Amino acid sequence: MSADTSFIEDLPAGPLDAYRKKAKFDWKKLKLVFEDVNLLKMKLKVWNALEKDSIFQRPEKELLTKEQKRIAALQLQQFRKYKFMPTNGQKASIKDRARYLMTINEALAAAYPDVSVKQALGVFLFQNTLATLGTERHQHIIEALWNRQILSALALTEVAHGSDAKNMRTTAVYDKETQEFIINTPDFKAAKCWVGNLGKTCTVALVFAQLYIGDQCYGLHAFVVPIRNPKTLLPYPGIIVGDIGEKIGLNGVDNGFIMFQNYKIPRENLLNKISDVTPEGEYESRISDPTKILGATLENLLAGRVGTMQESANNLACAVTIAIRYAAVRTQFGPSNNEELPIIEYQLHQWRLFPYVAAASILKIFSTAAIRHYLNVIEISHTETTVDNLNDMISEVHAIISAGKPLTTWACRDGIQECRECCGGHGYLKAARFGELRDTIDARITYEGDNNVLVQQTSNWLLRQWHSVLEEGQVCSPLSTCSFLKDHLVILKFKFNGSTVQDVKNINFITRCYQWLITYLVKITHDKQTALLEHSKCKFTARNDSQVYKAAILSRVYGEFVALKYYWKRINRNDVEISLRPILETLGILYGLSCLDKHLVYLYQGGFANNHSLSELVKNGILDVCSLLKSDVVAVVDALAPPDFVINSILGKADGKLYEHIQAEFFNNPGAMSRPSWWREIKVDNAPELKIRSKL
Amino acid sequence: MSADTSFIEDLPAGPLDAYRKKAKFDWKKLKLVFEDVNLLKMKLKVWNALEKDSIFQRPEKELLTKEQKRIAALQLQQFRKYKFMPTNGQKASIKDRARYLMTINEALAAAYPDVSVKQALGVFLFQNTLATLGTERHQHIIEALWNRQILSALALTEVAHGSDAKNMRTTAVYDKETQEFIINTPDFKAAKCWVGNLGKTCTVALVFAQLYIGDQCYGLHAFVVPIRNPKTLLPYPGIIVGDIGEKIGLNGVDNGFIMFQNYKIPRENLLNKISDVTPEGEYESRISDPTKILGATLENLLAGRVGTMQESANNLACAVTIAIRYAAVRTQFGPSNNEELPIIEYQLHQWRLFPYVAAASILKIFSTAAIRHYLNVIEISHTETTVDNLNDMISEVHAIISAGKPLTTWACRDGIQECRECCGGHGYLKAARFGELRDTIDARITYEGDNNVLVQQTSNWLLRQWHSVLEEGQVCSPLSTCSFLKDHLVILKFKFNGSTVQDVKNINFITRCYQWLITYLVKITHDKQTALLEHSKCKFTARNDSQVYKAAILSRVYGEFVALKYYWKRINRNDVEISLRPILETLGILYGLSCLDKHLVYLYQGGFANNHSLSELVKNGILDVCSLLKSDVVAVVDALAPPDFVINSILGKADGKLYEHIQAEFFNNPGAMSRPSWWREIKVDNAPELKIRSKL
Repeated sequence: MSADTSFIEDLPAGPLDAYRKKAKFDWKKLKLVFEDVNLLKMKLKVWNALEKDSIFQRPEKELLTKEQKRIAALQLQQFRKYKFMPTNGQKASIKDRARYLMTINEALAAAYPDVSVKQALGVFLFQNTLATLGTERHQHIIEALWNRQILSALALTEVAHGSDAKNMRTTAVYDKETQEFIINTPDFKAAKCWVGNLGKTCTVALVFAQLYIGDQCYGLHAFVVPIRNPKTLLPYPGIIVGDIGEKIGLNGVDNGFIMFQNYKIPRENLLNKISDVTPEGEYESRISDPTKILGATLENLLAGRVGTMQESANNLACAVTIAIRYAAVRTQFGPSNNEELPIIEYQLHQWRLFPYVAAASILKIFSTAAIRHYLNVIEISHTETTVDNLNDMISEVHAIISAGKPLTTWACRDGIQECRECCGGHGYLKAARFGELRDTIDARITYEGDNNVLVQQTSNWLLRQWHSVLEEGQVCSPLSTCSFLKDHLVILKFKFNGSTVQDVKNINFITRCYQWLITYLVKITHDKQTALLEHSKCKFTARNDSQVYKAAILSRVYGEFVALKYYWKRINRNDVEISLRPILETLGILYGLSCLDKHLVYLYQGGFANNHSLSELVKNGILDVCSLLKSDVVAVVDALAPPDFVINSILGKADGKLYEHIQAEFFNNPGAMSRPSWWREIKVDNAPELKIRSKL
Repeated sequence: MSADTSFIEDLPAGPLDAYRKKAKFDWKKLKLVFEDVNLLKMKLKVWNALEKDSIFQRPEKELLTKEQKRIAALQLQQFRKYKFMPTNGQKASIKDRARYLMTINEALAAAYPDVSVKQALGVFLFQNTLATLGTERHQHIIEALWNRQILSALALTEVAHGSDAKNMRTTAVYDKETQEFIINTPDFKAAKCWVGNLGKTCTVALVFAQLYIGDQCYGLHAFVVPIRNPKTLLPYPGIIVGDIGEKIGLNGVDNGFIMFQNYKIPRENLLNKISDVTPEGEYESRISDPTKILGATLENLLAGRVGTMQESANNLACAVTIAIRYAAVRTQFGPSNNEELPIIEYQLHQWRLFPYVAAASILKIFSTAAIRHYLNVIEISHTETTVDNLNDMISEVHAIISAGKPLTTWACRDGIQECRECCGGHGYLKAARFGELRDTIDARITYEGDNNVLVQQTSNWLLRQWHSVLEEGQVCSPLSTCSFLKDHLVILKFKFNGSTVQDVKNINFITRCYQWLITYLVKITHDKQTALLEHSKCKFTARNDSQVYKAAILSRVYGEFVALKYYWKRINRNDVEISLRPILETLGILYGLSCLDKHLVYLYQGGFANNHSLSELVKNGILDVCSLLKSDVVAVVDALAPPDFVINSILGKADGKLYEHIQAEFFNNPGAMSRPSWWREIKVDNAPELKIRSKL
């Protein structure tokens, strides 16, 4: 049965038609491989609503950041009033409900990244944390949140500590006389900072602080802390709170800092699901089932990361849409004086862009799979049933996402930059939108877990699996992402013996390379750590000195492999029409080969390839696939692309009327043709008569 | 004799002292290897003047782009009043005078990139073009320029054509009745655009248009075109001129567009050194010595590119200074609970940053050498003496710069991004300055010759040399950058036979690799082109389809080789003290190895390495050198760094008082702690009593 694509609007006719006609598939059907049909409908509903809403109208003039903050706050306020959830949504399972909320925020993020960050932090993350770390005594806060009576913030990071959360220095000392916690910031280095919504707007925050009873420290705990009077938006006495100032991007978000001076909060403000302090000042551990708690804590950590993956993949899709549409219309040079070629016809240009089109496709599907896995373990954690290998599943999902978030955000960073450069000077116009896309992705690289720290969690997990293979001959990989490791003896004997481009342009070759690479890299990382440990006797040193060229690249390669694995699984599902298989496979092969191209030297270093031609075959394979993709690529980006309103770029509109849109921008930007108000400050009164003007 | 470094100010004491004390050399002496002493003094003079000048004061509040344009215009006006040229400067040789002017603009660019772009385009480029393409009848315009009575612009790029200058479509038709040229823009696609200073401020422009007499087109010529009345700054009738709007960065520059409608200018406005049109409408070629003209035209093309190289290297120096100083002060994690390590101690962090410290060092010296070569050929072009191989020299300098500008700008792009990520969240603050550095370098990648087009000029030159080697057994490389190609038979037989890290940590190994790589790549590019040509019979196709993995990488590798070559030459000059040799060699080796690391696969593919260990040895060599560099790197960036006023980053100040500067920024940014004026729009009047506050 063919999928119903009638709800997807046709694209306007224009200069892109020439390439669109060449496509060998129906782009609308392809869209429904990249997107779940129901979630896509939901996103379209959101976008349609926002496009018609005057509060979400794109600003006609440039805004200072303080005005951007105001607009983002009003937009968030407005957005929270919409009821985008399907009518049966509130009754849906935890998993489906979470998926709906993530999709609504995903739609918001694609068009209004600042507002979505404010919502993700100030509504969802706050609510999730209260739900997982708090108890019934905090339920009324969640209710106030859903009634839009508070806007909140989550304060973990301090000025001097980010990734190293354990060393946070804000304290919450219990005073049993008054049954209060007294919160203090010892010095500026321990000020909470970078806290979204804290700068100007939030009324309540969750603050993480070291819990003390007397001189005894019980570690980091979360506390509900009132920040501002909701009726006056004035901060309460005892705190110094402010906005950290201008950033590279996301300036609609009011990131703030806060310092506490003997700031008192009631004992009940401690989120006490895991542990509590009795009125008398006894510390009580309340952990019953550690697995459940692990799952719950994971939820808060990972929700932001899978969301980031999805949003980044969408941003990359946006960027390649702009650059491909531009490349299909823009002509430059040609074989003869009278003939100019669209720049998409140049091999170099194809090679620069097409791998990122493939990456956007694969990473979109990968992030969807990551979300599914994430929600699965969340759901299992919330059920009463005991699942034997839940812990192992959680660890594996954590490893996937810890590799996936860096993989996706870095690919997006590189892809946006290449797209920007591929559009030449015009790509540097603000209205081309690459600037905003780049500034947004840039933040994601170091937030929600700094990429370079995060990848270590994946490699640590893989090293544990390797250890288990060596010790017990088996791995704990319930999702099968690295179960092949148990065949390491066979895998490490793989040799490349191909001799034609056909030998590399297939998924079997790519899979073989990745299995070999992961096995080889986990082995040499392990060996290096073992040697270092023997030498230095220090686990910390051994781990640090085995990152470069070893653990770090291991995580990256694993991430690419898993991404491709989930992609391949998706495109081979029954619901994918046969007419779509060729293009989907082409994209997968291009992604696989162009990723491998960056790791080829390890295949030589480790002896997988003795044959000099491997490198040439892979490179020629990539160029072959690019050339194959040329006639389809415009339709591929049509399938990847959100509506024009979301892309919001004068270079990437669906009608392909590139120069009309540039003209409109040049002629209509504010004050484009007016004399500047400051002209008197630069006029030249003593200008000589240059005789360079014609008489009229 | 030891150099006098007394004019270089000491650095303030602070947290960086611990690392500074470990350095095994005097950073001030190292500075005088990176910078020419007289030019450094000149730059310090410029910076000191600007720091004290209220017009150049850093804005205390955020500025809209229209205000940024005003400030940049006023700053340019003010800057032009300064007399920074040494008293004997006006009498200096053409070469020395040009060097001084470039240095003054370099100093300006480091601190105020927008103003320097305005000056470079509106004063220097305009003046150079008038001087080289114009004649005595245009002398009065140059005088008016120097008297600050005009500000100008240079209009070449059109909306639909950038790199492909030959296909510009603006026309200038000669009307012999009135002895005028009539300029027309056929449609919006032929509007001149991206023209710096044209948007709001310039009064005169040089416009490139196709010269027609009757129906006969004589190709692109330059015309002096009045744009605005200098007394009123209103545009003259017959043109539509405006500002193109917001860009990603450099918003102080008023980039403009212009369309002409039967706009008449006197015949004399044609720049007529190369060819002229008589009053009667006869086209006259006036070329006497083509070599001289080639040199003169080159001057205009290349001045911008060598300037771009130098400024980019300076920007990279700035970025690594910020990230290294941050890394030496910032602590995170540690081997035990009570011990935190500065992040500079982590191998991964060293590996991420130190190669860019090396790159900044090498590229600074390379760009200085490129400027010297450039000025040499300019000087020779201007003298009466006939130099036999001037043409060959010009071609080689052109090849060096066509590889050098992309090499430097891309290295700078990647380095700034890595530095930004190395500073974590704080690197995302606007006050960290990475945003501005990135936005500035971003423009350079596609202007002054799009990098991807430019590199083809280098590979074309190398292919010509290769052809000449094959045909005549020799190369035309008066500067010896590729004279080794004549030994290609020997070079292509090179094999790696090392077995220890020592075998790769030396300049001989690196040189050998590069000579092999360049020879191999030029050969396979040539072979590919030959094969394609036989097959397609089309030179255009043959060239386009041999860029990826062939010509493009050839240019890059050649650029790195030449950069390292000039660096090595510089550090082995007699004026370099023996105490500086070790650190200078370490930096050179690190640059060489870390560049080679990216090309290793070609060494396997081409059979240079059969030994699997080459890759491991190079990688281990890089880590060794990083570890060696750790105790010196803070002093290296002290030598690379301009004063704090120029670096202008709260994370990278010389006193290392990181947290004090962050605190000042958080507390003092405009409106940091004030309630927003729009608080009533988001206050919640129906907020429930949440009982989360303590009673006071």
